[in-house]
Amino acid sequence: MSKGLPKRSEDYSLWYNELVKKAGLAENSAVRGCMVIKPYGYAIWEKMQRVLDDMFKATGHSNAYFPLFIPKSLFEAEEQNAEGFAKECAVVTHYRLQTDPDKPGKLRVDPNAKLEEELIVRPTSEAVIWNTYKNWIQSYRDLPILVNQWANVVRWEMRTRLFLRTAEFLWQEGHTAHATAEEAIAETKQMLEVYATFAEQYIALPVVRGVKTPNERFAGALDTYCIEGLMQDGKALQAGTSHFLGQNFAKAFDVKFASKEGGLEYVWGTSWGVSTRLMGALIMAHSDDEGLVLPPKLAPIQVVIVPIYKGDEQLAQISEKVLQLKKELEAKGISVKYDDRDTERPGFKFAEWELKGVPVRIAIGARDLENGTAEVARRDTKEKGSQQFDSLATYIPALLDEIQENIYSKALNFREENTTKVDTYEEFKQVLETKGGFVLAHWDGTSETEERIKEETKATIRCIALNTPEEEGVDMLTGKPSKQRVYFAKAY
Amino acid sequence: MSKGLPKRSEDYSLWYNELVKKAGLAENSAVRGCMVIKPYGYAIWEKMQRVLDDMFKATGHSNAYFPLFIPKSLFEAEEQNAEGFAKECAVVTHYRLQTDPDKPGKLRVDPNAKLEEELIVRPTSEAVIWNTYKNWIQSYRDLPILVNQWANVVRWEMRTRLFLRTAEFLWQEGHTAHATAEEAIAETKQMLEVYATFAEQYIALPVVRGVKTPNERFAGALDTYCIEGLMQDGKALQAGTSHFLGQNFAKAFDVKFASKEGGLEYVWGTSWGVSTRLMGALIMAHSDDEGLVLPPKLAPIQVVIVPIYKGDEQLAQISEKVLQLKKELEAKGISVKYDDRDTERPGFKFAEWELKGVPVRIAIGARDLENGTAEVARRDTKEKGSQQFDSLATYIPALLDEIQENIYSKALNFREENTTKVDTYEEFKQVLETKGGFVLAHWDGTSETEERIKEETKATIRCIALNTPEEEGVDMLTGKPSKQRVYFAKAY
Ligand SMILES: [Zn+2]
Ligand SMILES: [Zn+2]
Repeated sequence: MSKGLPKRSEDYSLWYNELVKKAGLAENSAVRGCMVIKPYGYAIWEKMQRVLDDMFKATGHSNAYFPLFIPKSLFEAEEQNAEGFAKECAVVTHYRLQTDPDKPGKLRVDPNAKLEEELIVRPTSEAVIWNTYKNWIQSYRDLPILVNQWANVVRWEMRTRLFLRTAEFLWQEGHTAHATAEEAIAETKQMLEVYATFAEQYIALPVVRGVKTPNERFAGALDTYCIEGLMQDGKALQAGTSHFLGQNFAKAFDVKFASKEGGLEYVWGTSWGVSTRLMGALIMAHSDDEGLVLPPKLAPIQVVIVPIYKGDEQLAQISEKVLQLKKELEAKGISVKYDDRDTERPGFKFAEWELKGVPVRIAIGARDLENGTAEVARRDTKEKGSQQFDSLATYIPALLDEIQENIYSKALNFREENTTKVDTYEEFKQVLETKGGFVLAHWDGTSETEERIKEETKATIRCIALNTPEEEGVDMLTGKPSKQRVYFAKAY
Repeated sequence: MSKGLPKRSEDYSLWYNELVKKAGLAENSAVRGCMVIKPYGYAIWEKMQRVLDDMFKATGHSNAYFPLFIPKSLFEAEEQNAEGFAKECAVVTHYRLQTDPDKPGKLRVDPNAKLEEELIVRPTSEAVIWNTYKNWIQSYRDLPILVNQWANVVRWEMRTRLFLRTAEFLWQEGHTAHATAEEAIAETKQMLEVYATFAEQYIALPVVRGVKTPNERFAGALDTYCIEGLMQDGKALQAGTSHFLGQNFAKAFDVKFASKEGGLEYVWGTSWGVSTRLMGALIMAHSDDEGLVLPPKLAPIQVVIVPIYKGDEQLAQISEKVLQLKKELEAKGISVKYDDRDTERPGFKFAEWELKGVPVRIAIGARDLENGTAEVARRDTKEKGSQQFDSLATYIPALLDEIQENIYSKALNFREENTTKVDTYEEFKQVLETKGGFVLAHWDGTSETEERIKEETKATIRCIALNTPEEEGVDMLTGKPSKQRVYFAKAY
């Protein structure tokens, strides 16, 4: 098959868009800014969901489901949050269509079916959830509430890109309620660590764990923690956020509890989420000019086997051996596709599975049959070699582990090579313009400086990393004192 | 705990509503007609989802995701479908709010952010999906497409009830495309059988498999197959539908394929769905005046163990034995809750788990410790008795199977006792007024007769059962000839 994929070095952005479409992950729909997630893309998302859901449950959370719509009056209740999302929300104003008297066969909004109060399609669910928690919480015995929701949300973004920024996206949003600030902060940090673990161990994406500056905080939060990954074009991508909400939503929705000591106190809250944006991170972090490179732990198909044969008899001989191997691998929890289509040639199949990022390809032909061998090719390094067929049931599982580790190591090396310490603004701008990546620089802690740097360079403070050592220094722009370096980057 | 649950015999409808709330399954939200599915209710839905999803995949389907919104022009394309849903759909007309100049702190719809074309919140996704399939299908080699979506949908129902009829609900919708009518019909019937199997083997609800009359068909389908269950109040509940769409949507969206023979033909379609309504069926089919009765295969907690003790030392002795048993049962895939809360008394716990429908309760006290026994209570029959503690790891799994079967048998007996053959309209009305249930009667096959019966008795034709034997007869109302009996009932 002809892939027709642009090279990353020529047009990274076009390469990404084309890859998403050609690999069968997603496409644009008839609805502005909304995507169709195709079966192969959705299969990856399902794998992500399953792993994350298990991690949430292992940390004591349960799933629930809250309404898609938020009445305007509830939406308004937490002011910062309302302001933050008002500019980009879908508003339902009517509940019926009627036949258009002027256009036969067409429908129009029924003017008599106007809602008394407009409904906002949820951009995030704090408002409707805290309004519900109000009735669930009376006493400290009702706390903590540890709930997560898998849902679709809508933010009317003007410039959209498949997976990275879409008007509708899929996500999970955890919403927890606690008796103390300490407990809520511990929850916020715990979920950040769950996200970081998932990113590193499953997406094979090393991430910086950090806290956002006030400018970049979630509207309505006291603190926003985040994980930030680095893409191959040197731009950062925020892969997950975990918010300490303080008592903001409890106050907005009057959620109080009788404490053990007999007082009446506002509840402390957190919220945390990851979305289909993780698909964008997965794709951009590892893939190459030949197509997707999927970490084995998230690959819907981990091993593809292609027979190379002349005539039905050879195919039958190959299939017999392959189906036995497939069974053995599947018994070890490995997903295997035997691509015995007779409508396509092996070269076409090789290219197709390469495009789709299947981690391991096994090819077996007549010569292999005689020799008791098979050709094994790795998607990540493109290495291939002959292996004893009988060894494959033990060789392949180990190889998949090695590939998972290698993809992570490669991404980690890339990040390390593309993280630069700078001390002057000149150097800062030069690094951003030439190599990009994370730039570690001193910052005086003011919004003004942060904004000026953003205006002049398009770089934002991605986060103040949690593990940053204290280091006396001066802001590269203003010369004011600084106690630690922060992560700057241009970002998605 | 005081359950405060009304009796079914006194007010079935109130009993249902209270049970849904008190058992922690769902509640009404601040949004008219939209529910909050609470963690315990959602846990049951997750179990349903997992089983159904596995069944869909085992029959060759993949999941994907399509937009929440349908542009009005697409919505209009298939006329019958559009008409069917136009009267009850949520319409997005604006994409931004702004500060209300007249009311400080309040927001209003930004009149400058009116959409050029209104968006309908999907009531079902045929329109947006067939508009997508148009680009996926060129040749017979692209067929069949076997795709399912798990999603939320919105139908602006005026009278809503938790799970049974809500403005927003969760469901899955399968949408398949085929080269021939035969293949599409076989798919339609296959998925009906998947639903029937799920209903009978998991929900423990015997169902009638049938086909709808033209009056009751899905708008846009040539045939609607359905499964119908009988609730304890003698009303029927449609638990799943599978539609043969013919070429209606292919024609509306111009979806053609090059056939093997070289022609250009319209694609044949199906769609099929079950929703959170199944939760309503589950609750109403089996539960009693003490609370939920859950079939073990869908119970989030299958076994609850309650210690009965005085003092920490006794508790420690009991806990040691219980935790060992819990481990053994969990190793067999059984979910076990050890309720060792020290804030509640055993009687409270018994009542609570009874209300929540946990199939098996084990209680163990000081006397049991001495005797090497435990008290085992079944939720379905309320039988309880002493068992050798050492036998529990083998006894409990068998007991859960027996409970699953018993719940099904009970529901099957109920349905058989409440399915009545009648030959006259007088008898028909009398049965409906006294015992209710399914009424098997002859029908002349006309919409007029069907509608007249509905107006006069509120009973509808639930379906023409697939296994009905041919039987010469006459319509009970018109005396016109009929070839078989159909299922009538009052229905949810
Ligand atoms: Zn950050
Ligand atoms: Zn039916």
